[in-house]
Amino acid sequence: MKGNEFSGLRTDLYELTMAQIYLEKGYTSTAVFSLYVRKLPQERNFLVSAGINELLKQLPEFKFSKDQLKYLKNLNLFKDWFLDWLENFQFEGNIYAIDDGRIIFQEEPIIQVEAPLPVAQILETFVMNLIHRHTLLASKAARIYAAAKGQILVDFGMRRAHGFDSAMAASLSALMCGWHSTSNLEAGKLYNLPVSGTMAHSFIMVLGEEEAFKEFYKHYPQKAIYLVDTYDVLEAIKKTIKLAKEGYKPLGVRIDSGDIPTLVREVRKMLDQEGLTDVKIIVSGGVDEYQIHEWEKENLPIDGYGVGTKYVTSADKPYLDIAYKLVEYEGKPKFKLSEGKKTYPFKKQVYRFYNSQGKMEKDKITQYGKKLEGQPLVRLVMEKGNLLKEPEDWKKARERFLEDFSRLPEELKTIEKHHYRVEIDEMLHPERFLK
Amino acid sequence: MKGNEFSGLRTDLYELTMAQIYLEKGYTSTAVFSLYVRKLPQERNFLVSAGINELLKQLPEFKFSKDQLKYLKNLNLFKDWFLDWLENFQFEGNIYAIDDGRIIFQEEPIIQVEAPLPVAQILETFVMNLIHRHTLLASKAARIYAAAKGQILVDFGMRRAHGFDSAMAASLSALMCGWHSTSNLEAGKLYNLPVSGTMAHSFIMVLGEEEAFKEFYKHYPQKAIYLVDTYDVLEAIKKTIKLAKEGYKPLGVRIDSGDIPTLVREVRKMLDQEGLTDVKIIVSGGVDEYQIHEWEKENLPIDGYGVGTKYVTSADKPYLDIAYKLVEYEGKPKFKLSEGKKTYPFKKQVYRFYNSQGKMEKDKITQYGKKLEGQPLVRLVMEKGNLLKEPEDWKKARERFLEDFSRLPEELKTIEKHHYRVEIDEMLHPERFLK
Repeated sequence: MKGNEFSGLRTDLYELTMAQIYLEKGYTSTAVFSLYVRKLPQERNFLVSAGINELLKQLPEFKFSKDQLKYLKNLNLFKDWFLDWLENFQFEGNIYAIDDGRIIFQEEPIIQVEAPLPVAQILETFVMNLIHRHTLLASKAARIYAAAKGQILVDFGMRRAHGFDSAMAASLSALMCGWHSTSNLEAGKLYNLPVSGTMAHSFIMVLGEEEAFKEFYKHYPQKAIYLVDTYDVLEAIKKTIKLAKEGYKPLGVRIDSGDIPTLVREVRKMLDQEGLTDVKIIVSGGVDEYQIHEWEKENLPIDGYGVGTKYVTSADKPYLDIAYKLVEYEGKPKFKLSEGKKTYPFKKQVYRFYNSQGKMEKDKITQYGKKLEGQPLVRLVMEKGNLLKEPEDWKKARERFLEDFSRLPEELKTIEKHHYRVEIDEMLHPERFLK
Repeated sequence: MKGNEFSGLRTDLYELTMAQIYLEKGYTSTAVFSLYVRKLPQERNFLVSAGINELLKQLPEFKFSKDQLKYLKNLNLFKDWFLDWLENFQFEGNIYAIDDGRIIFQEEPIIQVEAPLPVAQILETFVMNLIHRHTLLASKAARIYAAAKGQILVDFGMRRAHGFDSAMAASLSALMCGWHSTSNLEAGKLYNLPVSGTMAHSFIMVLGEEEAFKEFYKHYPQKAIYLVDTYDVLEAIKKTIKLAKEGYKPLGVRIDSGDIPTLVREVRKMLDQEGLTDVKIIVSGGVDEYQIHEWEKENLPIDGYGVGTKYVTSADKPYLDIAYKLVEYEGKPKFKLSEGKKTYPFKKQVYRFYNSQGKMEKDKITQYGKKLEGQPLVRLVMEKGNLLKEPEDWKKARERFLEDFSRLPEELKTIEKHHYRVEIDEMLHPERFLK
């Protein structure tokens, strides 16, 4: 899209065709839509709430420009009064959210939008896309973080993300979930994230290995990681050792291909024999949590990972079963009974309960407003279109994630499937309202 | 990113750190980088070249704003003369491409960038992201098109795409690869694509089923598809029949959940018994080519598919093993020998050979400039920064795709793995240059 346009057209046609009918027939009372994940995939034991801060920043731009309205007019589906209404569209409703960085589970409402029905309806596609993208990536980032057990993780994924929005969300999510840095400069600038990078094979191919290492060191001693797999890893390590003796000792070496277990053991031995025990070994190329888990089990001498493609595409599970469903209209419960896609009515609160060791024990979902003993996760973040607090820095969300992660039961941090207990208050069961 | 900024920061840090060294040390001769897919995944028998037109449109905006340069300066890695050079950055090189919509295979250069080394290097991340996203989605769209054997396909994926640029690429790719329409309004406007849509469950939940159908028909008779699975599909069909008799006969009904084979057979029978033989049955909800293949085998009475999540995320294979590799510098061959990631040197041409029935028989990759008998796929599309023809409409790419698809061997259109013959000219084998 043209960057200077509003984002109102980031919606599906049916949102607008329905909204026109809602307005014409007077269905304009307050509705609540809930955005949540119906079911955790087999490949995830928990999710990380993300994108809320971005949503709050971007929502004011969800409007329709003259040019966009002209396009809509030419579809010959919309009446002039409706296009006028769209021209004045501005979100003035309430948003309830679970903060960025919190660990969450199925059925828990990441976002709840409370607004006149046509307004809340029109936002569906926009809100889903944004929150899905961030939550998907944060959940994957957290899983990789869990597998890496404290080793350095760097986001290298920009080139194979499904677009630049996705690359931005990936870099932000990575840093939120305990990673070290990203190679993505646009994200570095916009979100003030730490950036890092090494060198490409092309650099070696042009300068030659020894010259490439040396020049890189001379220019960026504080960033010097030598890429050692362009031709022969062990030969490149010999050159690294030679250069280190000449004063060009890198922070680390990066291996991007080959038989990693054999190579890293050999490389570590060669470096250690020369006293280069603090030169780190960074591995990249097709890395994900499954691979890291295997390598960590073998206790390989790897100090960090450059993680790209399989992270930024959430390759083992590239989507969540996320839904944006009407749960309340005019204060009355709304639900559907579609097979496998049943919904629970009402605006909701989630309470979290901890055991005596401070670990998470269970969550209970109930109607918003009902008080339980646990820790409430849902809070009002926007009231009548006004932010209730300033957008926050990613570091705040990172603290929140690390806190939740420290309280997460250990078995949920593994790559095997484990279930966390999420109870749904009986008062929310749709069958109760059918009588 | 801020929409009014240039896209220069859509790059990885290392592109700029390397470029600074290239410039300082005088490595500024002409380089050729080739963007290609190393290996087809098990889940793809062919790919569809896409994103070239978009790249040509977006490349002039790949520049650095004052604000972006200030950010780079603050990283304390770049010298003032380099930042000045970035400020004047503008692509004035050559681009060779395989046109949007062509069916392609592993090792075939979708894009080749020929420019001074630092310029071609800096574009790496931007070009890869854009072409990967489009080619990934077009290849998936084509596979779904093949499975649907002429049935209607509508793109519903915007909400679960990994961002809005991904949703845009998905809508464009869908239409390029023979689909009927998209629900994505932003793509509809920007690319002039046909848009369509039905109604959401929320609409039924508020108006009630019968009222919802009737109102929708009254407003949009030319778009009326009734959503029949909110409560009980067969009851909703009875209402559809009643309404049809009252003059509200829809174009079709949409089923989004449940036991599809049983439901569609029953629904077809009910509609036919009432003479509603032209009311179409559209199925949505988790649809992909594997599912369509199963249903088509059973010969179910389905007329069309709404396809979303599994398409827009390319769920069975959410990335391609795409690479952007230096293949030539100062006219000399460049390659690497990394295990499993060997590259072939030189700027390349691909020739395609057809059999006597006009079907594709094999491709042969050779050095650009060498003449063979087959049909050449690679052409110069930008020379010294100038477009050699105007950006084209998607309909042109669709014609190209449909033509190639008609010539594709039938076994490659199935969901089982089959290989097409791609030969690499012996003159390109890197081992030749090691002596």
